[in-house]
Amino acid sequence: MRVATLRVQSFAEVAVPRPDLSARSHRIQPFHVMTLLARARELEAGGADIVHMEIGEPDFPTAAPVREAGRQALADGRTGYQPAAGLPALREAIAGHYQRDHGVEVDPGRILITPGASGALLVALAMLADPGRNVLLPDPGYPCNRNFVEAVDATPRAVRVDAGSDYQLTPGLAAAACDERTAAMLVGSPGNPTGTLASSADLAGLAALGQRRGIGLIVDEIYHGLHYDGAPAQALAHAPDAIVVNSFSKYFGMTGWRLGWMVVPADWVPVAEKLLQNLFISASTPAQYAALACFTEASREIFEARREAFRQRRDFLLPALRDLGFHIPGNPAGAFYLYADITALGDDSADLASGLLEQAGVAVTPGLDFERTAPERHLRFAYTTDTDRLATAVSRIQRYLAAGG
Amino acid sequence: MRVATLRVQSFAEVAVPRPDLSARSHRIQPFHVMTLLARARELEAGGADIVHMEIGEPDFPTAAPVREAGRQALADGRTGYQPAAGLPALREAIAGHYQRDHGVEVDPGRILITPGASGALLVALAMLADPGRNVLLPDPGYPCNRNFVEAVDATPRAVRVDAGSDYQLTPGLAAAACDERTAAMLVGSPGNPTGTLASSADLAGLAALGQRRGIGLIVDEIYHGLHYDGAPAQALAHAPDAIVVNSFSKYFGMTGWRLGWMVVPADWVPVAEKLLQNLFISASTPAQYAALACFTEASREIFEARREAFRQRRDFLLPALRDLGFHIPGNPAGAFYLYADITALGDDSADLASGLLEQAGVAVTPGLDFERTAPERHLRFAYTTDTDRLATAVSRIQRYLAAGG
Ligand SMILES: Cc1ncc(COP(=O)(O)O)c(C=O)c1O
Ligand SMILES: Cc1ncc(COP(=O)(O)O)c(C=O)c1O
Repeated sequence: MRVATLRVQSFAEVAVPRPDLSARSHRIQPFHVMTLLARARELEAGGADIVHMEIGEPDFPTAAPVREAGRQALADGRTGYQPAAGLPALREAIAGHYQRDHGVEVDPGRILITPGASGALLVALAMLADPGRNVLLPDPGYPCNRNFVEAVDATPRAVRVDAGSDYQLTPGLAAAACDERTAAMLVGSPGNPTGTLASSADLAGLAALGQRRGIGLIVDEIYHGLHYDGAPAQALAHAPDAIVVNSFSKYFGMTGWRLGWMVVPADWVPVAEKLLQNLFISASTPAQYAALACFTEASREIFEARREAFRQRRDFLLPALRDLGFHIPGNPAGAFYLYADITALGDDSADLASGLLEQAGVAVTPGLDFERTAPERHLRFAYTTDTDRLATAVSRIQRYLAAGG
Repeated sequence: MRVATLRVQSFAEVAVPRPDLSARSHRIQPFHVMTLLARARELEAGGADIVHMEIGEPDFPTAAPVREAGRQALADGRTGYQPAAGLPALREAIAGHYQRDHGVEVDPGRILITPGASGALLVALAMLADPGRNVLLPDPGYPCNRNFVEAVDATPRAVRVDAGSDYQLTPGLAAAACDERTAAMLVGSPGNPTGTLASSADLAGLAALGQRRGIGLIVDEIYHGLHYDGAPAQALAHAPDAIVVNSFSKYFGMTGWRLGWMVVPADWVPVAEKLLQNLFISASTPAQYAALACFTEASREIFEARREAFRQRRDFLLPALRDLGFHIPGNPAGAFYLYADITALGDDSADLASGLLEQAGVAVTPGLDFERTAPERHLRFAYTTDTDRLATAVSRIQRYLAAGG
């Protein structure tokens, strides 16, 4: 049946209600830092100088050899869809990386290429978490995690972690927090926002708990490679059935290319693959060809030099902030974040962040984005800008605090 | 609490059951064509010559000016995250495209850049469809659509469409199929697998039905630009509150770059934006810079020349297949597919597809991937290979049929 064409007015014009948005549309939260970022840009447009310590992205462009490989791929016309699981050569290269850097043998068939760690996290949770089930998330943690859980209509269950366990979810905390509706635990090491590492004992203990209770374990290793005191434990060595998530974004410096990977237990590969196929078709082809160049000696030298720069920044910033009265417990030994308790300096981190931005020209992220327990007592500092700028920030913060906030 | 490190054995070693996979993991289906594709590659590895008519991807690499813009972006170090909504210049360029090509005024603020139409479809359904609600999908249709609906735990509701409505969902069919649990209708024009177009009357009628019943309307226009008899109606002109999905994959020839967009009603922009932000962070940056070059005169000439090539292929293949006894009703006036009823030639399209592949060296896709109603009576032919190869395929099919199948 066909009807005659009519000019349909928009909902706004005819004032009928729109269709309802899904419940998850209401539950999923935007990042608070976005408002702050917009305000920072506004101040900059007005001529202000802002030190950006709110950004979770390396301040280096992608390394030249990787960009060059991408350029070559484009010249060669590598622009078509790839298999959903990824370019076979890239899966092999990642397996080689696990072997060389971690002494861990991983079948390349278990490595699936994804659109960023983001794509891997979505697929991992879609694989494990049904509506009505819950997922344990250490609190504080990466803000998208609870929203990925919301996206698949499961319930995020925040588990308070503190300096006592270096802000990592321990088997004991997880055992106390899980119940028969727990589908998965999702941990990150090095963690965002704290930069702390999970021990091999924690990973093994979480794996054992998962086996006993039939709970899936997802380990986000996106900050692997960015560690400054000693390498973090490799989940694949201690938790053989974990879904391990990783990315070319941070250590490999490819944020904007949108490329990551996941390692899944062999018998779950077809499940992950059909989800990737349906949700994404495939990951970016130029990015996959470019990423092949991440595993050369020339690229590794660049990555290691950048790691050294991050280490120097941490070694500068950590004591400097402690001197100013920020309480940074635990050992922030990786990623590029420091997570500070501001109790000695104030009682509202959102206020402090806003004051620092408006009065002192320093952008940092308040705890609101990262935790449920005591957001008002925490700030995240990202050392994704060079040491000179960090020094500028430190003296600005000092002046701001000395002036009474 | 920390436990001593233990060597955890994998589930396989200790023979305990793995955690349960989610119900959606079982409901989501892989594409049947993948098995066929794998077999085709096997035959090719053994020396066979296969004409590929199963592939839903233009057989041209990305146009040179677009690849060159991508190379320039990489040289310039455009490799960081972008705003979740996309590069402002690209959103403006797409608005200009609607104005120029369709005479439709769209606020660039309503245009959000996505990782392919795939990313847009996921976000649109996540915005509209809660668990327990249903989504109307014309049957036959694009196979991922039902799996996107499954991914958000809603129920795909296949609505049989046939040659009587050019395989498009009509307001009458939709009105008969919807109920109080219907969250959305998802239609595509030009459609995959049929290549047929929705009329402006259909779009307006669906929009009016949506307003009356509070049902969201999603229109997938990924094959816009690839039309051979006359331009399809533009949903934004007839269904002002529809969520319109599009992509740089097909007309613009950028499949492997993973770039698309969605147009959403103004007051839903913040919702779509927070979902994009959380699920994807942002779309590919090199791809967004490259895509800017799609809107130049030089690129358009290439796209239009390719469109002309597709038109010639369709004009060759459509009568040739009809002559062979394939029944192709309706008017396949766009995309690059012909959807054929094989009743006159056999009673099992999967058998026929397998025979054509093994005996005749022609790969086509059986109806199984596209419909629930009569998959065994249908085959999809993609004209994503040149006319010479199509001619080879036609004579091979003719011989195969003459030999009794
Ligand atoms: C802990 C963590 N996981 C995952 C991601 C997602 O990164 P991407 O999708 O770029 O790989 C981020 C990005 O900041 C992150 O901090
Ligand atoms: C009808 C339809 N919609 C959406 C897509 C997804 O395409 P992409 O994610 O590459 O934009 C396809 C791909 O074949 C398609 O045929």
